Amino acid sequence: MRMIDLIEKKQHNESLTESEIKWMIEHYTADDIPDYQMSAMAMAIYFNGMNNEERSALTMAMVESGDQIDLSPIEGVKVDKHSTGGVGDTTTLVLAPLVASVGIPVAKMSGRGLGHTGGTIDKLEAVPGFNVEVTQEKFVDLVNKNKVAVVGQSGNLTPADKKMYALRDVTGTVESIPLIASSIMSKKIAAGADAIVLDVKTGAGAFMKSVEQAKELAETMVNIGEAVERNTMAVISDMSQPLGNAIGNSLEVKEAIDTLKGHGPEDLTELCLVLGSQMAYLGGVGSSLDEARAKLEENLQNGKALDVFKTFIAAQGGDASVADNPDDVLPKAEYTKEVTAETSGKVSEIVADQIGISAMMLGAGRETKESQLDLAAGLYIHKKIGDKVEKGEALVTLYSNKEITQDVVDKIINNIKISDEATTPTLIHQIVQ
Amino acid sequence: MRMIDLIEKKQHNESLTESEIKWMIEHYTADDIPDYQMSAMAMAIYFNGMNNEERSALTMAMVESGDQIDLSPIEGVKVDKHSTGGVGDTTTLVLAPLVASVGIPVAKMSGRGLGHTGGTIDKLEAVPGFNVEVTQEKFVDLVNKNKVAVVGQSGNLTPADKKMYALRDVTGTVESIPLIASSIMSKKIAAGADAIVLDVKTGAGAFMKSVEQAKELAETMVNIGEAVERNTMAVISDMSQPLGNAIGNSLEVKEAIDTLKGHGPEDLTELCLVLGSQMAYLGGVGSSLDEARAKLEENLQNGKALDVFKTFIAAQGGDASVADNPDDVLPKAEYTKEVTAETSGKVSEIVADQIGISAMMLGAGRETKESQLDLAAGLYIHKKIGDKVEKGEALVTLYSNKEITQDVVDKIINNIKISDEATTPTLIHQIVQ
Repeated sequence: MRMIDLIEKKQHNESLTESEIKWMIEHYTADDIPDYQMSAMAMAIYFNGMNNEERSALTMAMVESGDQIDLSPIEGVKVDKHSTGGVGDTTTLVLAPLVASVGIPVAKMSGRGLGHTGGTIDKLEAVPGFNVEVTQEKFVDLVNKNKVAVVGQSGNLTPADKKMYALRDVTGTVESIPLIASSIMSKKIAAGADAIVLDVKTGAGAFMKSVEQAKELAETMVNIGEAVERNTMAVISDMSQPLGNAIGNSLEVKEAIDTLKGHGPEDLTELCLVLGSQMAYLGGVGSSLDEARAKLEENLQNGKALDVFKTFIAAQGGDASVADNPDDVLPKAEYTKEVTAETSGKVSEIVADQIGISAMMLGAGRETKESQLDLAAGLYIHKKIGDKVEKGEALVTLYSNKEITQDVVDKIINNIKISDEATTPTLIHQIVQ
Repeated sequence: MRMIDLIEKKQHNESLTESEIKWMIEHYTADDIPDYQMSAMAMAIYFNGMNNEERSALTMAMVESGDQIDLSPIEGVKVDKHSTGGVGDTTTLVLAPLVASVGIPVAKMSGRGLGHTGGTIDKLEAVPGFNVEVTQEKFVDLVNKNKVAVVGQSGNLTPADKKMYALRDVTGTVESIPLIASSIMSKKIAAGADAIVLDVKTGAGAFMKSVEQAKELAETMVNIGEAVERNTMAVISDMSQPLGNAIGNSLEVKEAIDTLKGHGPEDLTELCLVLGSQMAYLGGVGSSLDEARAKLEENLQNGKALDVFKTFIAAQGGDASVADNPDDVLPKAEYTKEVTAETSGKVSEIVADQIGISAMMLGAGRETKESQLDLAAGLYIHKKIGDKVEKGEALVTLYSNKEITQDVVDKIINNIKISDEATTPTLIHQIVQ
């Protein structure tokens, strides 16, 4: 087999076979196929796409390119969730204990990641004592015992995907839906998922700017899931403004606790219930999404979800009193500043990615792998789209351990629009299953 | 400027500006832009094409990437010719003296090349004593004196094109018409051409399999020529069977001499007259293509073209008596073999590229840069498409200095079809100007 022939096949809009894709990914991972051939292939895929057989073959070839986590010693259906990235996404912190509280095993391996805030394990590290470095054996034990554990990713998962992603990033081929879909699905499957729930964000703050694109990505991933025998569902959710009110590691932990107590932000709560219902339903709880949702709502009301959260935090060495006194337990910022409204009216736009960048500038996220996180840094949005606001009223509170500069304040002011009229965005655009 | 932004522009079907293209080619030549980005760009160009401004900018950027031959000390309009490659293409050997005989300066720099036979300078080296290594000063003197000189290419012409071609060759992006057109035009312009005549081959033995593709390539190159102020004309000519009868270095020299004497193969003679008319007309001879052609025909009849050939050969140290006694002067092959017809009928197909490969197997061409040419090797086709043939009659004579193996004979037999009916292919499909 020769890579040039495979490139030309794809270029002429012919399908690649499973064995061709497997060969290509194996040899690319082994550095036998040069980057300049793979980038030409990625561009040909960008233009000519891939059918479901090709996408499934690509997904499984990437799964097989590295280690695969064996979660079979954990009882029950292991359901994993993936969000396609947005701003202020606290869902995992809420979902892990919430779904575990109805008996679904949540065995979550998470990365640290670059971006506006840290990854889920960075956020959890805001809880004093919380340990994310756990052996595979201990991890399995924790999940079997408490139904939930969240640990740092170990092992060499999907190296082919890592290598391809780095190449796509510099060759204009990130935007290809089959490549995005295979990348996401391969990571979930390599991490041991039996079933997968996808939260595909859409809007200004998301990678998929239109609902149509988001729908195409969601359908593509659901089709791959079916083809490789992992039950998969997807939600298309709004990211035209940040989700919830908090952006930043400690701030999001606190927000997650509020949500688990049943009085979190409306949008975050609703999205967690929708995603949680899918996870629970795929895990075998309830005979319909509605039944699954009822059980989750019950556990938010009766305190069971919060109890699971406490147990989970304590089991990994964290200070479980955070659930009762988050303000005392979580790291606090030395500097805070209120950004106030310059006019009265209704909030009509919150440019999500720019608000996210502001949080990163305050220290909440990593710009490079080497950046040090400020776990207390971030911002809290007091007014969301559609909310009334009076001139001088607080729009956003900023938190940081370094002095807060005017450029961050200006960035906030410039990216929150106040008008006479405003339309509250739809939170859940569509369910894809 | 960042290459990733240029890739994404082209990917989204936006046009690149002249300065963007210049920047890209400069930095790619300097190894500042990696191959994996340029291959992604080439694939995006394959899919989205380039408009005439982009193609012209690319052509000139490649011209400026290396040395440019200054032919201004040569009087008159320097007209160069390029054929897009085929099998048994002896046109340059005929055209150089023929066009010079009507007063057009032919200052030809030629490469050695890979392929079925050597390049033009390899062929000329079949003439004992002929010297292709000539200083730039002597080259100019020769052309001013005799109107014709053919020398080996010196200097570092279009290094960007060389680098890009090597990359395209392994990334499935050879087939892109804007890239082919810019590549060809840049080489001619860097070699000092004021005006350019293009012979775009079409058919089974050519790169452009259909007349439509060939027409698109020809029009693209003529448009580039106009845009960069080099008068350009093109002929779309048939390469469904080899041109002329001889394939091989000495054999083609002899065929060229026959043609200059006015009794060469009909197709070769006709194509040389068509291309020669364009060269002469662009050089200012005659007020129409027909007038230019009449002068060329006259010089084939009255012996002037042959005289110029002799002068040209002698001026570069070659044995000019080759014109009168080619069989005595040119290298002779130790082994010859006749391939005869297995049935009677009419020749209905001669698979040009396979016949070309047979000639290479006999030693006429180079498989790799290191291969040694056998100047006497090659083959002579006695019957062309449409010719009647009797069982047992000679179809092809093979020449080599190594013993001729059965696999070459079989290759010839398998690639010349004899049927009851045959259609003679049209030689000149179209003139593009």
